[in-house]
Amino acid sequence: MYVPIILGTGREGRESEKVARFVLSEAKAYGFESEILDVRDYRIAATDNTQATAIAKKLASKIDKAGALIIVSPEYNHGYPGELKMMLDLLYQQYAGKPLGICGVSSGPLGGARVVEQLRLVAVELRMINIREALYFSNVRDCFGKDGGIKDADAWRKRAKIFFDDLAKHAGAFGRKP
Amino acid sequence: MYVPIILGTGREGRESEKVARFVLSEAKAYGFESEILDVRDYRIAATDNTQATAIAKKLASKIDKAGALIIVSPEYNHGYPGELKMMLDLLYQQYAGKPLGICGVSSGPLGGARVVEQLRLVAVELRMINIREALYFSNVRDCFGKDGGIKDADAWRKRAKIFFDDLAKHAGAFGRKP
Amino acid sequence: MYVPIILGTGREGRESEKVARFVLSEAKAYGFESEILDVRDYRIAATDNTQATAIAKKLASKIDKAGALIIVSPEYNHGYPGELKMMLDLLYQQYAGKPLGICGVSSGPLGGARVVEQLRLVAVELRMINIREALYFSNVRDCFGKDGGIKDADAWRKRAKIFFDDLAKHAGAFGRKP
Amino acid sequence: MYVPIILGTGREGRESEKVARFVLSEAKAYGFESEILDVRDYRIAATDNTQATAIAKKLASKIDKAGALIIVSPEYNHGYPGELKMMLDLLYQQYAGKPLGICGVSSGPLGGARVVEQLRLVAVELRMINIREALYFSNVRDCFGKDGGIKDADAWRKRAKIFFDDLAKHAGAFGRKP
Repeated sequence: MYVPIILGTGREGRESEKVARFVLSEAKAYGFESEILDVRDYRIAATDNTQATAIAKKLASKIDKAGALIIVSPEYNHGYPGELKMMLDLLYQQYAGKPLGICGVSSGPLGGARVVEQLRLVAVELRMINIREALYFSNVRDCFGKDGGIKDADAWRKRAKIFFDDLAKHAGAFGRKP
Repeated sequence: MYVPIILGTGREGRESEKVARFVLSEAKAYGFESEILDVRDYRIAATDNTQATAIAKKLASKIDKAGALIIVSPEYNHGYPGELKMMLDLLYQQYAGKPLGICGVSSGPLGGARVVEQLRLVAVELRMINIREALYFSNVRDCFGKDGGIKDADAWRKRAKIFFDDLAKHAGAFGRKP
Repeated sequence: MYVPIILGTGREGRESEKVARFVLSEAKAYGFESEILDVRDYRIAATDNTQATAIAKKLASKIDKAGALIIVSPEYNHGYPGELKMMLDLLYQQYAGKPLGICGVSSGPLGGARVVEQLRLVAVELRMINIREALYFSNVRDCFGKDGGIKDADAWRKRAKIFFDDLAKHAGAFGRKP
Repeated sequence: MYVPIILGTGREGRESEKVARFVLSEAKAYGFESEILDVRDYRIAATDNTQATAIAKKLASKIDKAGALIIVSPEYNHGYPGELKMMLDLLYQQYAGKPLGICGVSSGPLGGARVVEQLRLVAVELRMINIREALYFSNVRDCFGKDGGIKDADAWRKRAKIFFDDLAKHAGAFGRKP
């Protein structure tokens, strides 16, 4: 099953890229076909829901074949990055029925819990299936070692497996095979 | 498929009871087996998540056999009624995987849109499946005629059918038959 | 008192511009010094919270002198436009203690009630003072006549006055004069 | 200044009582006049917003004289305890203009971040003034020693002072003296 990972911030110096790379690696090890969809590759100047542009069509070609979606998003002032929202708003019906798993990223101790909640409400309107499991990366500047590897790797791998299991289970709905 | 309707307020003079009776009637006409689960019949003094009480077991016997759930809830100060939350918190694993449709009720013009959002976030944690469709009963004191019947009945029936269709479609997930 | 109006969408064909122009006109008639801050004039490619750019400084020069803020925002998939969030995230400490009034705009019947709630949570983190009053423009495509004027003008003027009164009252806090 | 602390859960075995006692002790040391308003002392069978009952009047006598409010609330399934919401809904106009500080409590690592957000939206409708600062008690079962004292007391005292400072600053608004 193809499960792309949307990297939801284009900010210079973004820490979430490290998180997305970790999640990508684990997703592949789990058996998903996956890749990162970087918001930097879907830049637009303002909200555009016409689905007529090359950018929208590029995103549609990815979402159409996805069995589920993962979003890795930092929390900015308790909400989502603007560039992530513009990217999501490019499409609509393509998301329907697809399970969504969210990874919150925060420089503080609360793991992006607030952005996860705000994105879940957007996802309901997009007819996606929210799963209960999520990954919360608190104090992200301390999560990765100098070699780029995640610290406490065993604990994170266990959490990632629970997260992927929930995603896969919901992707089996509606006759879609995980 | 058994789809009970939780009537989420026990307030004296509650208007939501009329809404719940309308939704019950339409749900039966649609083909669901249904009944109203009235918060007044699940009263507790404070949150209890032990699942050990007779009240919890009574609720579990209903939720266990449900293929999907409907909540009819007024919006009180942009949130849910306390008695509804205590009722929902009685159980946990029984809700997993069941689609949830919410009917918001408001004395004002915005149809309970805020309580629908707050309940959706609770539902994700309870592992329920939020559907996109919802019914929004604005200005509820003007919704029903003196005979108790809903005004604009044809429009409401069309809306209810779209709502039930969305619920039934999601209930087909995980091998459960609508 | 200077009360700028942030027009929160840059989408082609945006209806919210009409709303912002109506609110501007009423705000001036009420006695506020006001102008529209158009997201199209604060475009950035991705979230930037360095406050180092010319765009950030331009916005800071406006927010610094504001006694209160108004946001006019459409609701896109139950959330805020991405370009609005990127604009707000440009600054931080400049917002502290300033009352915020939000005007929700929707093509549907619920007046942007959801985007108002999501923005309020962002505003708390920005240390702004949320006021209870808000303006909800439902079915916006039907709100304005062919001449561009708002329909039901008297009702809207009354609502706008209640909204401005709440804003002015809160702006009097902390020794700031309305 | 009188700043009562609402203890928002009546659940048997509630951990939040320890948190409320710690916050009470610190609030008094800070110079607030304070006491705990325990939901167990404001029990009602269902939402009642008539303000006509002895319970409502008892609460009104407390809120009327408060310069600010603190809520200590656990997070139950990402929302607030039902008994807390019924208590808050007893009144309306008494809350207007009063700053609100929230202490989230969680058995898990995210400090009740979600219940804080849901309560903030209720508070806006109640015309309270949300402050940015909050206290987040994660993994509450590990927060207190066998003697009942909080662990890491110095760090918690510093956090509590920042929280009280924010509350006091906002209580100075509208001519009310902290």
